[in-house]
Amino acid sequence: MNADDLEALVFDVFGTLVDWRGSLIADLTAFGRERGVTIDWAALVDSWRAAYVPSMDRVRSGELPWTTLDALHRSSFDALCERFQIADALDDEARRWCVDRWHRLRPWSETVAGLTRLRTRFVLGTLSNGNLRLLVDLAKSAPLPMDVIFSAELFHHYKPDPHVYRGAVELLATTPERVMLVAAHNSDLLAARACGLRTAFVARPDEYGPGRPADRSAAAGVDLGVRDLHELADQLGV
Amino acid sequence: MNADDLEALVFDVFGTLVDWRGSLIADLTAFGRERGVTIDWAALVDSWRAAYVPSMDRVRSGELPWTTLDALHRSSFDALCERFQIADALDDEARRWCVDRWHRLRPWSETVAGLTRLRTRFVLGTLSNGNLRLLVDLAKSAPLPMDVIFSAELFHHYKPDPHVYRGAVELLATTPERVMLVAAHNSDLLAARACGLRTAFVARPDEYGPGRPADRSAAAGVDLGVRDLHELADQLGV
Repeated sequence: MNADDLEALVFDVFGTLVDWRGSLIADLTAFGRERGVTIDWAALVDSWRAAYVPSMDRVRSGELPWTTLDALHRSSFDALCERFQIADALDDEARRWCVDRWHRLRPWSETVAGLTRLRTRFVLGTLSNGNLRLLVDLAKSAPLPMDVIFSAELFHHYKPDPHVYRGAVELLATTPERVMLVAAHNSDLLAARACGLRTAFVARPDEYGPGRPADRSAAAGVDLGVRDLHELADQLGV
Repeated sequence: MNADDLEALVFDVFGTLVDWRGSLIADLTAFGRERGVTIDWAALVDSWRAAYVPSMDRVRSGELPWTTLDALHRSSFDALCERFQIADALDDEARRWCVDRWHRLRPWSETVAGLTRLRTRFVLGTLSNGNLRLLVDLAKSAPLPMDVIFSAELFHHYKPDPHVYRGAVELLATTPERVMLVAAHNSDLLAARACGLRTAFVARPDEYGPGRPADRSAAAGVDLGVRDLHELADQLGV
């Protein structure tokens, strides 16, 4: 495809740039070992992520007023503490620490090198449902080389609401076809496409664990499908 | 002062981190020479900057709806083209190029090294009246090592309206006393202080040209006064 007119690449973060599952399982398992809290932490992490979309949908539907992802994460974590029978073992400070692990997720192996390459040619931004401070901490610690942090929080709407994609384009002071969303999830990409953005699918088949269901390839209508960010840089002529 | 509780430093940009006057005079003088447009470009630049506060005040007072700084700059530049009798010489494309020079301003000599030092310890952000894309381009080109770009545009209010300082603190998900504004202008610092932020004055005595009036030292109530960003890093124990 012709990348000449492309000014900016905006990236989904959880799953696309960072391995939320592997990072959280590692951190929480170590935490549990230290505290003597022996549960199936991988199962808790999978349940936590399973609560992600439904919790945002409560905001998207208007059932809840605007609520940050940190607050949604805390609320769903509290419910999981009950379900996994660890409510008495984890006080407020411990729960804060656990929720803060979303600010410290680790990148996939080629993420940093790929972003560094792409950044030489394009403006790079996050475009994530994470709240702004979460993304700032994550970009600083991973690190994710970024020129700007766009968060659903800036627009008080969660993806895939069109306000998020259109809001980023407006702040970039450009037109949708000069901005490309890069994501591992076709639902996100198709919502961006409906707003006129260009789209690139990057495969992260192990996002939910080896062998678990995940989008394996670009849906019809997505502009590009790539194995990783290096292939994206190649395709964009960087 | 005790910097232990400080999480983030947010920076005024024009004058504090970048030499808008020297950069614009150099770029526009070269542009004029190439085009055979021989006027006193330094006088035009000084007049352009003189229009800055009054143009924002039209937004702050409600006389104008929200208008980006790029649009305000273009409007005041158009008026100056008339006043300097160069309206016929500069077509739309040339004027766009001139207005875009605000996206390419150069940092003061120690800015990049000072920010690089400070960034090892604190979250760094811009907090400027420049629109978001202007600041993104500027931070990328200068470069200004930043973790987040905060712009008045995010809040649809210009500094010194309190919405801007409070908005940045809210997006940082923290309390005002954990955020410090760094600026070369006491009016900005005192407005931030009124919102509970900590404040540091950095001296840029030549901002408006050698010998021209500028704030020379911190006003009463400003927490710190420093000569440059290295002294700020020293004072904050970085």
